[in-house]
Amino acid sequence: MPMLKIDAHTHILPKKMPNWSEKFGYGDFIYLQHHRKGIANMMRGNQFFREIKENCWDAEVRIMEYAHFKIPVQVVCTIPVMFSYWAKPMDCLSLSQFLNDHIAKMVNQYPRNYVGLGTVPMQDSELAVKELERICDIGLKGIQIGSNINDDNLNEDKFFPIFEACEKLGLAVMVHPWNMMGEKKMQRYWLPWLVGMPAETTRAICSMIFGGVFERLPKLRVMFAHAGGSFLPTLGRIEHGFECRPDLVAIDNQVNPRNYLGKFWIDSVTHDPLMLEYVLKLVGSEKVMLGTDYPFPLGDLGMGKFIEDMNLADRDMENIFNKAALDWLTLSKEDFI
Amino acid sequence: MPMLKIDAHTHILPKKMPNWSEKFGYGDFIYLQHHRKGIANMMRGNQFFREIKENCWDAEVRIMEYAHFKIPVQVVCTIPVMFSYWAKPMDCLSLSQFLNDHIAKMVNQYPRNYVGLGTVPMQDSELAVKELERICDIGLKGIQIGSNINDDNLNEDKFFPIFEACEKLGLAVMVHPWNMMGEKKMQRYWLPWLVGMPAETTRAICSMIFGGVFERLPKLRVMFAHAGGSFLPTLGRIEHGFECRPDLVAIDNQVNPRNYLGKFWIDSVTHDPLMLEYVLKLVGSEKVMLGTDYPFPLGDLGMGKFIEDMNLADRDMENIFNKAALDWLTLSKEDFI
Repeated sequence: MPMLKIDAHTHILPKKMPNWSEKFGYGDFIYLQHHRKGIANMMRGNQFFREIKENCWDAEVRIMEYAHFKIPVQVVCTIPVMFSYWAKPMDCLSLSQFLNDHIAKMVNQYPRNYVGLGTVPMQDSELAVKELERICDIGLKGIQIGSNINDDNLNEDKFFPIFEACEKLGLAVMVHPWNMMGEKKMQRYWLPWLVGMPAETTRAICSMIFGGVFERLPKLRVMFAHAGGSFLPTLGRIEHGFECRPDLVAIDNQVNPRNYLGKFWIDSVTHDPLMLEYVLKLVGSEKVMLGTDYPFPLGDLGMGKFIEDMNLADRDMENIFNKAALDWLTLSKEDFI
Repeated sequence: MPMLKIDAHTHILPKKMPNWSEKFGYGDFIYLQHHRKGIANMMRGNQFFREIKENCWDAEVRIMEYAHFKIPVQVVCTIPVMFSYWAKPMDCLSLSQFLNDHIAKMVNQYPRNYVGLGTVPMQDSELAVKELERICDIGLKGIQIGSNINDDNLNEDKFFPIFEACEKLGLAVMVHPWNMMGEKKMQRYWLPWLVGMPAETTRAICSMIFGGVFERLPKLRVMFAHAGGSFLPTLGRIEHGFECRPDLVAIDNQVNPRNYLGKFWIDSVTHDPLMLEYVLKLVGSEKVMLGTDYPFPLGDLGMGKFIEDMNLADRDMENIFNKAALDWLTLSKEDFI
C-alpha cells in the first residue's frame, strides 16, 4: 500500500461570492470577476489583486490535479486576503460564515479528500469564539489566522480567549503570514512576499512564545506556514536576545524560546532540501508536515518532490507526509481509507 | 605562531561629541551623558536610547578586553543610530566627518589593532562621494551603511554613484540593519532587534541583487552583518519567487539570486553552530568572517568561541578568523605583524 500523503497547506475560494462591498456598503472587499472559462480575477475594490484559475475553486479539478502526485488529501483554508479583520465585526462574521459553510460543504461531500480550516473575525473575540463553536459543529478541524491582526500581535490579551477556545474545542490553528511589515516601502521585486512573509511568521511565533500563549495553553495545536518563516534559522539570535536582555524579552514568560521546539508544527515550504534538513534537526520530523501553498505559484508546486529526493528515513517520510498533519489535526489514517 | 584573529564587526563612538541638536538647531541627534565614570547614556533628543560603557569609546580598554580573547584586530565603525540620514545633508556630512576623523585618528595611533570604516551622508550622493574620497585619504578602509536609507532601498538609482565610487576607490562596504521594518508595531519583546533586523538585512541583499548593483559592479566588496540576516535561510523562497514570477522579480536583473552566493561576504553572528554550518555550506568559509557586534549585549560576546568549538578544518578556521576579512578589506596578514 502506498504511503498516505496529506498536503496540509492549500488555499481555496468559493466560485461565487456576494459582492461584499455592495452588500455592506463600504470597504475594498475581495470579489471575483469570472472573465474567461476557468479563470477569474480577484479584485480588491476596483484594483486587480491576483488572477486565479479553476483549481482555486473547483473541488474536483483539484482532486484530479492531486491524483497526479498521488496525494489524496488536501487541508483547505481561505486566502489570507479574505480575512477582512479590518471590516466591521458583524460583517466579517457574515463573510467568514459564508467561507466556512462553503468549505464545510466540500469537506462533507469529499470526506476522503478534504479537511477544512475555517476563518473567524479575530477583531472581535466574542464573535470569533461563537464562530469557533459553529466551526466545530459543521465539521471543520481548525482555523487559519493571520500573523498579525490589524497589526496587533498575537500575544495581545484580547486574542487569548480565542486561543483558549481553540484548545478547549480541540481545533487546530494554522498561522499564515499576511499584512506584511514593511510592505509599503518594498513594493519592488515582490519583497513583501519574499522578505516580509518570513518575517511576519517569525513575529507571530515570537509573540506567541514571549507572550506566554503556548505556556498557558499547552494543549493548543498550532502550525506555522512556510516552515515557520525565519524563526528557526534566527533562533540563535532570538534565544540570545532572551538571555542577554530578559528585562526586554522575558517580561511575560520566563521560559527559553528554544524550549518550545517540538511543541508547535510547521509545514515544509522551504523550497530547499538543505533548509528542510536544518528545520528537521531542530523540531524533528514529527512536527514537519508536507505543505505546498497550492495553487499559488510561490508554493511548492512540485508537491513535495524535493523532500522525496532527500533520501530521508522511512519514519521521517511517514511523519512528514502524513503523521505530523494527522497529529496536528487529531485525525487518523483510517479517516481517509 | 597563533592564528591571527580579526573581529570584523564592532562598533565605537568618540567619548566626546558636540551636542549636534544644539549646534544645528533641530533634530533628535544622539548625544552622550557621561553620568558615572566609565558609563554614559546615549540620549536621542531627550529620550534615553541606550547605556554604554567605556569599551564603547576607549581604544585601550578595548584592546585589553580583546587581548583576553587573543584577538588583536578590530574593524571599527559607528553605531547605526548615528547615521543621521534624516538630517540636512550638510549637517550629516559634518557629523560623519567628525566620526570618520575620530576613527582615522584611532586607526593611525593603533595600526596593528584597528581597521576603520567610515560613514557618509547617503541622503546626498554627491556629498557622500566626496566624503568617500576623503575617507580614503585619511586611511579608512571602507564604509558602513544602513540596510535602507530613510526607508528607500539600496537599489535606488540615487545610491548607485556611491557604490560605484566605493568600487573605484577600493573601499569595502558593510551593510548593517537599522530603521527596522515593522518597528512601531512590535515594540514589545525587543522584536525590532530580534525579528526586524534579520528581515532588514534580507531586504538589503535582495535589493542589491535584484536591482543589479552586484551585476553592474562586480568588484564591489560588500559584507552583510549578522550572517546576512534571513537571506541565506530563505534563499529557497527568494529563488523560487525569482523563477516563478520573473515579471515581478527579474525586472532589473535576469540573473538567479543563487548565482551571487560567494560574491559577497557575511559575518559569523548567528549565535548558533548549526546555522553557521548552514551558511558555510552556502557561501563557503572564504566569505564568512568573525564578527561579534561588540560591545553590545546582543553581539557574540563569546568572541567566536562557538566557532572554535565546531571542529572545523584548519583552512575554514583560517578563513573565518582572518582571511575572509583580509580579502574583504584588501589587507594582508603582514599589515598586523
